[in-house]
Amino acid sequence: MNIKEKIREIPDFPKEGILFRDITTLLKDPEAFSYVADELVKRYKDKDIDMIAGIESRGFLFGTILANRLGKGFVLIRKPGKLPAETVSAEYELEYGTDKIEMHVDALDNGKNVLLVDDLLATGGTMKAACELVERAGGRVVECSFLVELSDLKGKDRLKGYDTFSMVVYS
Amino acid sequence: MNIKEKIREIPDFPKEGILFRDITTLLKDPEAFSYVADELVKRYKDKDIDMIAGIESRGFLFGTILANRLGKGFVLIRKPGKLPAETVSAEYELEYGTDKIEMHVDALDNGKNVLLVDDLLATGGTMKAACELVERAGGRVVECSFLVELSDLKGKDRLKGYDTFSMVVYS
Repeated sequence: MNIKEKIREIPDFPKEGILFRDITTLLKDPEAFSYVADELVKRYKDKDIDMIAGIESRGFLFGTILANRLGKGFVLIRKPGKLPAETVSAEYELEYGTDKIEMHVDALDNGKNVLLVDDLLATGGTMKAACELVERAGGRVVECSFLVELSDLKGKDRLKGYDTFSMVVYS
Repeated sequence: MNIKEKIREIPDFPKEGILFRDITTLLKDPEAFSYVADELVKRYKDKDIDMIAGIESRGFLFGTILANRLGKGFVLIRKPGKLPAETVSAEYELEYGTDKIEMHVDALDNGKNVLLVDDLLATGGTMKAACELVERAGGRVVECSFLVELSDLKGKDRLKGYDTFSMVVYS
């Protein structure tokens, strides 16, 4: 299946000059959605993975599917203030300023080998911070998995030292 | 399985006097997580459902699993400004002021019978707004499905006229 045909392009979103890759058209299409989920399951079913962690909120979309279909637990990596118990947090840079993500300190007590899932690899800042969270909680990052990669933004360079996988790459 | 044993209680979150029901302990536990997903699949596999819609962001957790395991498309209901194409929006009341949720106007072009999924039924305001979105986009709400219900907050009254289901009820 040509997944790119299922991803809609929206010019000037979220601001002028940006061509946004809209995966909602893929998600609402039962065949395309199934296809992507099946491909991810094939890729990860024989890997040594204990837990799947998804980055809020679009990392939850395929992250929970993978966790359920591989029979693993799911870990939420969230924006600040959303997780109710004790957390570890990591900062990442935005175009202007910084932002933070958090994970519960006890999130990995059902296993240490963590597959990280998000929808989009752009500059890689958020995923790099997620890798730090996993390691600070005593885990090991098995791979950073993305649905879409915008290769011009060189996110893979930012994630050097980690395995990465992107189902679709735009340059 | 006693699901309540897998849900952690956090006192005074997000503010004093609130006892927060933390489902992250359920999600990270592979057996509990699988059990809940399987129960949801059993409940909905023979119902006349075309699409699953999940409310950002914890409605995505079991929403996408259901969509994938039932072979349906998934629709994202999101906070304002997150969806890139034309949207319908609906307001709901907060303790102080109002908030809004949005859905793409063309979200239901793969089917009209929509199962709505969220993690928590509290006052029911967000889910009621989600029902409006589905109907304004030409859909029919099959059921409003929750993982946790706080029955003292009378969300079911707010959702009168719609079928609702909650896997766990706290009163």
